[in-house]
Amino acid sequence: MDLTPLMNPGAIALIGVSKDPSRIGGRVLKYLRSHGYAGKIFLVNPKYEELEGIRCYASLASIPSPVDVALIGVPEQAVPSVLEEAGRAKVKSAIIYSAGFSELGAGGQVKQGRIKEISKQYGMPVCGPNCVGIVGFQNKAAMSFSQFLDVPKLIPGHIAFISQSGALGGAILNRIQDIHIGISSFVSTGNEAVLEASDFMEYFLDDPNTSVIMALMEGVRDGRKFMQVAQRAREKGKPIIVLKVGRTETGSQAASSHTGSMTGSDAVYEAIFRQYGVIRVREIEDLYLTASAFSKERFPRGNRVGILTTTGGGGVILTDQLIEMGMTVPDLTPETMSNLAAAAPSFGIVKNPLDLTAQVINDPLLFPRSMEIFVKDENLDAVIVSIAMVAGGKSKERASYIVETAKLTEKPVLSWWAAGSLSKPGTELIQESDVPLFASPERCARALDSLVKYSARLKADKETTGAAAPSLKKKSLQFNEILPSSGGVLTEDKGKEILSAYGIPVTRETLSRDFEQAKANAQRIGFPVALKVVSPQVKHKTEAGGLTLNIRDEAQLLAAYERIMLNVSTYDPNAQIQGLLVQEMVAPGKEIIFGAKHDPQFGPMVMFGLGGVHVEVMKDFSLRHAPMTEKDAWEMIREIKGYKLLEGVRGDKPVDFQAIVNSLLAFSQLVSDFENVFSEIDINPLLVYEHSKGLKAVDCLFITNPNHNG
Amino acid sequence: MDLTPLMNPGAIALIGVSKDPSRIGGRVLKYLRSHGYAGKIFLVNPKYEELEGIRCYASLASIPSPVDVALIGVPEQAVPSVLEEAGRAKVKSAIIYSAGFSELGAGGQVKQGRIKEISKQYGMPVCGPNCVGIVGFQNKAAMSFSQFLDVPKLIPGHIAFISQSGALGGAILNRIQDIHIGISSFVSTGNEAVLEASDFMEYFLDDPNTSVIMALMEGVRDGRKFMQVAQRAREKGKPIIVLKVGRTETGSQAASSHTGSMTGSDAVYEAIFRQYGVIRVREIEDLYLTASAFSKERFPRGNRVGILTTTGGGGVILTDQLIEMGMTVPDLTPETMSNLAAAAPSFGIVKNPLDLTAQVINDPLLFPRSMEIFVKDENLDAVIVSIAMVAGGKSKERASYIVETAKLTEKPVLSWWAAGSLSKPGTELIQESDVPLFASPERCARALDSLVKYSARLKADKETTGAAAPSLKKKSLQFNEILPSSGGVLTEDKGKEILSAYGIPVTRETLSRDFEQAKANAQRIGFPVALKVVSPQVKHKTEAGGLTLNIRDEAQLLAAYERIMLNVSTYDPNAQIQGLLVQEMVAPGKEIIFGAKHDPQFGPMVMFGLGGVHVEVMKDFSLRHAPMTEKDAWEMIREIKGYKLLEGVRGDKPVDFQAIVNSLLAFSQLVSDFENVFSEIDINPLLVYEHSKGLKAVDCLFITNPNHNG
Repeated sequence: MDLTPLMNPGAIALIGVSKDPSRIGGRVLKYLRSHGYAGKIFLVNPKYEELEGIRCYASLASIPSPVDVALIGVPEQAVPSVLEEAGRAKVKSAIIYSAGFSELGAGGQVKQGRIKEISKQYGMPVCGPNCVGIVGFQNKAAMSFSQFLDVPKLIPGHIAFISQSGALGGAILNRIQDIHIGISSFVSTGNEAVLEASDFMEYFLDDPNTSVIMALMEGVRDGRKFMQVAQRAREKGKPIIVLKVGRTETGSQAASSHTGSMTGSDAVYEAIFRQYGVIRVREIEDLYLTASAFSKERFPRGNRVGILTTTGGGGVILTDQLIEMGMTVPDLTPETMSNLAAAAPSFGIVKNPLDLTAQVINDPLLFPRSMEIFVKDENLDAVIVSIAMVAGGKSKERASYIVETAKLTEKPVLSWWAAGSLSKPGTELIQESDVPLFASPERCARALDSLVKYSARLKADKETTGAAAPSLKKKSLQFNEILPSSGGVLTEDKGKEILSAYGIPVTRETLSRDFEQAKANAQRIGFPVALKVVSPQVKHKTEAGGLTLNIRDEAQLLAAYERIMLNVSTYDPNAQIQGLLVQEMVAPGKEIIFGAKHDPQFGPMVMFGLGGVHVEVMKDFSLRHAPMTEKDAWEMIREIKGYKLLEGVRGDKPVDFQAIVNSLLAFSQLVSDFENVFSEIDINPLLVYEHSKGLKAVDCLFITNPNHNG
Repeated sequence: MDLTPLMNPGAIALIGVSKDPSRIGGRVLKYLRSHGYAGKIFLVNPKYEELEGIRCYASLASIPSPVDVALIGVPEQAVPSVLEEAGRAKVKSAIIYSAGFSELGAGGQVKQGRIKEISKQYGMPVCGPNCVGIVGFQNKAAMSFSQFLDVPKLIPGHIAFISQSGALGGAILNRIQDIHIGISSFVSTGNEAVLEASDFMEYFLDDPNTSVIMALMEGVRDGRKFMQVAQRAREKGKPIIVLKVGRTETGSQAASSHTGSMTGSDAVYEAIFRQYGVIRVREIEDLYLTASAFSKERFPRGNRVGILTTTGGGGVILTDQLIEMGMTVPDLTPETMSNLAAAAPSFGIVKNPLDLTAQVINDPLLFPRSMEIFVKDENLDAVIVSIAMVAGGKSKERASYIVETAKLTEKPVLSWWAAGSLSKPGTELIQESDVPLFASPERCARALDSLVKYSARLKADKETTGAAAPSLKKKSLQFNEILPSSGGVLTEDKGKEILSAYGIPVTRETLSRDFEQAKANAQRIGFPVALKVVSPQVKHKTEAGGLTLNIRDEAQLLAAYERIMLNVSTYDPNAQIQGLLVQEMVAPGKEIIFGAKHDPQFGPMVMFGLGGVHVEVMKDFSLRHAPMTEKDAWEMIREIKGYKLLEGVRGDKPVDFQAIVNSLLAFSQLVSDFENVFSEIDINPLLVYEHSKGLKAVDCLFITNPNHNG
């Protein structure tokens, strides 16, 4: 659906407009006029002839010229008929402010379904219901009743702001514009009956007025759509910055009763954001300050940061933050050092952070002189200018030095000003410039961190991304015979057949129907061997006593055989034993785990972690959506805390990382190919050996969907 | 030293005062007068008769009446003589603004030593050098040249602010007072030649005008003094809130060149802060916002938080933050629920967070009516009121409801306002009230978290703290014979003698001088045994091949004996072999580690962690200063991430925690008793068994100080 009529309307119809400026309809009209919307405004209310000097129409149908958007603030029970009327009158889009839908539970959900149907029937995009509307800052289309619009004027800019929460969005807008950060459009998506945040993101990807998209989100409805939009944004190089709320379980509950949005597990969102290059922030102020930094469109080539400060303490605080986040505060080049020494002979020590000390009070030109040399240093990819205490006119002078000197470089130059009201002449000047301004050094460092990581991601994307493993989808039909017709567990031997077909190394093993077969198989494989029961009813073999390791000879094999048969029939008298698996005993290696799970929003997700206590107890694992690229696989491996153990500690050699990557790619393809068949897969343990020695899947568990359509 | 003359002077002498108000002396005079200091001001400058209508004296000695503090801003080379003169004239204290001392390195350090000497000679407390001075907000003694003092007026309050960085401190003061947070005194400690941050903390502990102490610190000079002050503050219930900068190694380097302060490892500071109840914050704004919350002197009885919000999104964001930090957002009592339902029949769902929705716009009294019921809920220990978008006069009305309703309870009531300038009438009202105000929900949650943790600590302190283990200090003389006379390593058998004496269980073992003795000892202990070389030159036995485990009989014992003798003499031909230790083979248990290290600032520190990769590779350990209390020991154990492994996973039983606590206490006493003897101690591994089965030290390493005076 084309959102242009909704976002950039030439003609607006206001339904249910009221004389009372405290009611929704009255407020929207007031704001449209006070902010100077230049398009046509049609009012619809059969009760009046005219309102505020504008003619009132009895119905949408009676408006003589085309309408781009209908603004609907009527009581909830009247919404369907008004929307229907809009559809019939060929109105191109609608915003529904009215509440009383899915946010109230099941009953409201049904009513909301009607909105969806009408929208579909007429191909008419709808924003809301239960939203505060849309505000165009460039075209002054203030189609909202948010009290935010009480501000005297809208400051246009290049940041699009999407908020699922309308009231909060409006309030945040007020703070954003207080510090002169410009906005292209604000959208409150409300209950998202039709259009959701991703749809607006998609629109802004092609909006020339928008260079950065920021969103305050409680959840994503259509995970695939979100991933597609994020992928397109990444290819286009337009940053999407998200504050995802409802992270904790209790928080999510609050979220779902709020806008009726389904919120997924936070670990899944985190993985999706990383995989698709979405910038995630953790706090409200970081959301708009980071967006502001991105809107300056200066991207660092690396993570080396120079700090120019007028106070030692400021340098220390910034250095702490930068280092903790993985950036560096490198030495300056010898050239810079000698130039600085020449420019300011009084300096004690020339280094990074460069502390100009109280010296600048006596010699104000020391500041631009030093900064000019500093920003050009080839060891630096970005510069932070930290200002402590400078008041009044002096602060304006200082600010103009910063703004002018920043123009001499293409590197990002950010500035943190520690003082408040006393520095206002200076900070106001910076707010209007290309230098992002911060009141908090920590937020400054975090914004720069996002810039650094985003740039690194863009750079890496330009290099080869590494292909995903070839899909075996077409071949997958051959597995039909081994898939259970209804939900259940795949036996280990069948699971390994599938792993093998995807090129994931598995243990040598043979299914044996009786002891004689087992004996022959053991001789062929060679003692020692393991013996494992194969039964669809036995999900966890150890628990059922269905597993014996390290069998050294025939006598032990017989004993094990008999013990397992007895144990399993005791454990579950109805267990159908298909045979016993004779399996090679593998050499000891490091235990890793691959897992897969179907996420309701995003679909197939792959998990990677270390065996033993690491995944289960220490919760140390990484996640990605399947299928993934080779780079994703490497990132998954490096992301876990236990990565160091794979690299080798206490003289251990590093493991065969390439083998893990290859198998992870193959596994992710398997998981994607069979996403409708398996609800969960575990390969646990996978033993990985040292460099070039590969890995081997020792056990696996495939759980099928009850209603799969393989 | 009594700091009253310095902090609350009745007579100030200004040395080196100047006509030029841009110079230090000129500025201090201007600020003292503009802020209305009511005490006596004496000017000292032989060049003038009078300045600004105040008589100038030729020297300090010629001032006819007693002087409480000399303010010294003369050039660095004149400082010692001026200070000397002040001492002779019986001036009671001094502030030295002048720079050019330890911040410039070794040369400056020497000059700074002279200040220390003079201060000592005359018993005269000195603040600085290289500081911006001290500002009394109650007595208007603006003894500083910080441009912060350009503000029209000082807002007095009950928070004392100590900053090692003067420029930054002044700038932060400006932000603090911009939002109407009152201050009792501000101290910039500069290079801390004489008085350091801890000395001022000590002063503020007894200052009736101060209820909260906050500090921006780069490091502590005298660790013991800091611990004593922190302990007193804890006993007195006066909170100390610290932002410690210079956390990372690079940050510390910047810090040490800045004020010449020695910064210790951050993990040690973190441990000391926890152990002594110092509240640590991570960001500048959190420092003063947390202090402001504490200054309201309302402390929660538990961690159960109620959220009253006018926007669902606000509730979700706060819930996320609170849950992530370990607080709870519990269900309301049935009574509250029915009362709320009666008070507001239009509510959809009555729960916590309580979302009043846009409803409050139509029915403003819904707000106080609901809040009154809500704050009284017995399931809640604290309440956060979250306000999204309310503008102008309405915001003032809303604010007054909050302020008045908060008076009906003794619980902390905090308020986060999402909007900015539009809500100013409301937020200004709250700033003047007992309700701490936040612009950021995350900072609001963090401040509450500090309140909750601090209250829990105070409560726990009132209960029995658990005694430290009895000191064996007096008995320690008996160990003199086993201590090497100079630096070196204690052999395992001697180390274990000390552990045993402190009641820490060790393996049964006997030193054997030759094979015959070893044989006899093995028979007595019972096979299987371990055999270990005992040599002061062999620090790590495995490395030297000086260790064999699981020896099952005499033949294996002989082979092991010969192999070890050969290995060790090959490893180090000069190794002096004192014998071989025959040691029981202990039952397998969970491996833990105790360690000790001497910290240059804080002295003896004890480390606890899990064996294997946990301490070394995963850096999962806890630290405390020795000696410690039983509660400290429990906290150390629970603090590590691997705690879950000790509690038992996958059907394991929990370990004998009380045994760990007992041995940890004994160990901490040992470490404290011998702090001058041992620079490092490791007990690794200690095997701990299930509940009531105790633990056993298997190996240990004691490294002695070269110059110990045990």
